[in-house]
Amino acid sequence: MQICGQMSFISHSELSKFSIQLFSAMGASKDDSKIASDVLISADLRGIDSHGVSRLISYVKLWESGRINMSPNIRIVRENKSTFTIDGDSGLGLIVAPRAMEIAIDRAKKFGSGWGAIKNSNHFGIAGYHAMKALPYDMIGMAMTNATPLIPPTNSKQAMLGTNPISYAFPTKNERPLVIDLATSSVARGKIEIARREGRKIPKGWMIDKQGNISQNVNELKEGGMLTPLGSMEELGSHKGYALGCLVDILSGVLSGGNFGKWVPPFVSFLPLLPNLPGKGLGHFVGAMEVDGFRSVEEFKTNMDIWINSFKSAKRVDENKPIYVPGEIEFNIEEKRLKTGIPLNDKVLKDLYKIGRKFAIEL
Amino acid sequence: MQICGQMSFISHSELSKFSIQLFSAMGASKDDSKIASDVLISADLRGIDSHGVSRLISYVKLWESGRINMSPNIRIVRENKSTFTIDGDSGLGLIVAPRAMEIAIDRAKKFGSGWGAIKNSNHFGIAGYHAMKALPYDMIGMAMTNATPLIPPTNSKQAMLGTNPISYAFPTKNERPLVIDLATSSVARGKIEIARREGRKIPKGWMIDKQGNISQNVNELKEGGMLTPLGSMEELGSHKGYALGCLVDILSGVLSGGNFGKWVPPFVSFLPLLPNLPGKGLGHFVGAMEVDGFRSVEEFKTNMDIWINSFKSAKRVDENKPIYVPGEIEFNIEEKRLKTGIPLNDKVLKDLYKIGRKFAIEL
Repeated sequence: MQICGQMSFISHSELSKFSIQLFSAMGASKDDSKIASDVLISADLRGIDSHGVSRLISYVKLWESGRINMSPNIRIVRENKSTFTIDGDSGLGLIVAPRAMEIAIDRAKKFGSGWGAIKNSNHFGIAGYHAMKALPYDMIGMAMTNATPLIPPTNSKQAMLGTNPISYAFPTKNERPLVIDLATSSVARGKIEIARREGRKIPKGWMIDKQGNISQNVNELKEGGMLTPLGSMEELGSHKGYALGCLVDILSGVLSGGNFGKWVPPFVSFLPLLPNLPGKGLGHFVGAMEVDGFRSVEEFKTNMDIWINSFKSAKRVDENKPIYVPGEIEFNIEEKRLKTGIPLNDKVLKDLYKIGRKFAIEL
Repeated sequence: MQICGQMSFISHSELSKFSIQLFSAMGASKDDSKIASDVLISADLRGIDSHGVSRLISYVKLWESGRINMSPNIRIVRENKSTFTIDGDSGLGLIVAPRAMEIAIDRAKKFGSGWGAIKNSNHFGIAGYHAMKALPYDMIGMAMTNATPLIPPTNSKQAMLGTNPISYAFPTKNERPLVIDLATSSVARGKIEIARREGRKIPKGWMIDKQGNISQNVNELKEGGMLTPLGSMEELGSHKGYALGCLVDILSGVLSGGNFGKWVPPFVSFLPLLPNLPGKGLGHFVGAMEVDGFRSVEEFKTNMDIWINSFKSAKRVDENKPIYVPGEIEFNIEEKRLKTGIPLNDKVLKDLYKIGRKFAIEL
């Protein structure tokens, strides 16, 4: 570990080792522990710190409260060639979703595409990880999930949708893959936390208070406030972000037989489940499509490179600010962090030590 | 026709008759003319006036300039069970996309889902029409299309993406279907036109000028200005709207072998095509998934109703402002316009008379 300013840097291999041991100590098989750790560390490597090892303590607490089954019987409960539904048996989403993605890829090999709705799961880390699993097979990957309610519909002051991310990954030829991975909220929760820590003001449009008024209070979420859907405000199209959140919620929750809307189980163990749940656990939706069923792989990949280069060379507003294509910033961070290690702030580090002591695992 | 204030009201059946005759006069078969008219009038009925008969004059001009083939040989050029690519033979998107959707539905019957990439097409009207074609089969429908470049990537001042809409339609039990249909821009072009006509100021975030500065000038688009991606500004997440636009562009343009990005053919006949086009025409991407491959249709539809009712009864910010679910407002407008007729402003009406005279068709 290296300490630099307020951050400690730990190599991804040390963090992997730690989290593999942790998942094993909680009862996961050796293979499952490796997969779960791989999903988690990929978030830290790609700079999506809110979804990496900082979440380990919450996973432990959910497991302690009996909401997570570490040796789930993940099984297909319904299917029709290119489509299927999986019951995750209350498993970690970090374990359930990669299994579902493998099945989707297998179906895509047989039928051109494969689409899986997953119920009875838990949070699955970053959507991008799952979508990217399709890339080595020259397939387009897709993953989405519903999540803890935190966003109200346009004109409402009740949280009905999670940050419900959508990810698509596209294979390329010489360029790095194009990876879209976005929450359907206007801002990630983590950005508010960073603004709070740095004492910075946040823009109008990120949050509303519990009465539905625009709020710039960095502590608002702890006081009953909510995030806004992508689009932020009605006049700027928040109904579109709301609709995208609905799309994810329906494909992940309603189609699978999982929970949806306000009933999606909270990620924190101290919040109780609502009564009369309409489904089981939370839901994901994943898919894979073989490029070859649409266009020759060579042609597609060559044109993806042309696509990327044409966007990157679009005219700039400020010559010093490059145009990025989706996923590019994350690949840049990953390249850097593979060398420097992953920066962890004091709070996360303290949590990891605490978990380590509990399970007698050294960091 | 009834005249009321600045609007003339014409029944949808009269408008249908007019547009069927027009498409036939341009050389489309009887069946194709009916389908194209059905797509077009559905936009007028659903309140998406910018995509209805107001576009007829542009279709005529594109046809006159030789860019549209009214008797296209629409054919599958590549396929693999649940996936296929269609060459639209420069046909009207209004004719090509419904054909592609029929094939997607057919594939979904055989393989659980069906996904079609379409190249060498033209503008296809409202995405929602095509997605909704899946509903009578208890399928989930999906449609998207790339379009005339009008939106720059975040940090760019060059239009690289169209308003690239995404639509999903979900069947329900007793409620009206849930239909998501959104452009990935922060605002529809039509809303700026309405603000201009009414002399209203528009909010910050809808447009930028040709230098990339925020603009509230209602004439900006005519002066080289551009629309913003959903999210409007970088600080409010415009990179997410940009990424969604990319998603649509790649699935519609790159996967199909159509054009993409700055090369997408403009909708107006007076703008030339760029040289060295990477593909053919513009592209769509459509799909259908049988609900039954995931969950019993009865269970799914019942839960869709529960979903809709739970969202509609979410706590309101203002008791007088209802919470809408996606597609609800459009169904309300359709119900109304089926009775009152479709309101057309003077400019649209003049255009229709002009076309009518040209082809000796009475309105």
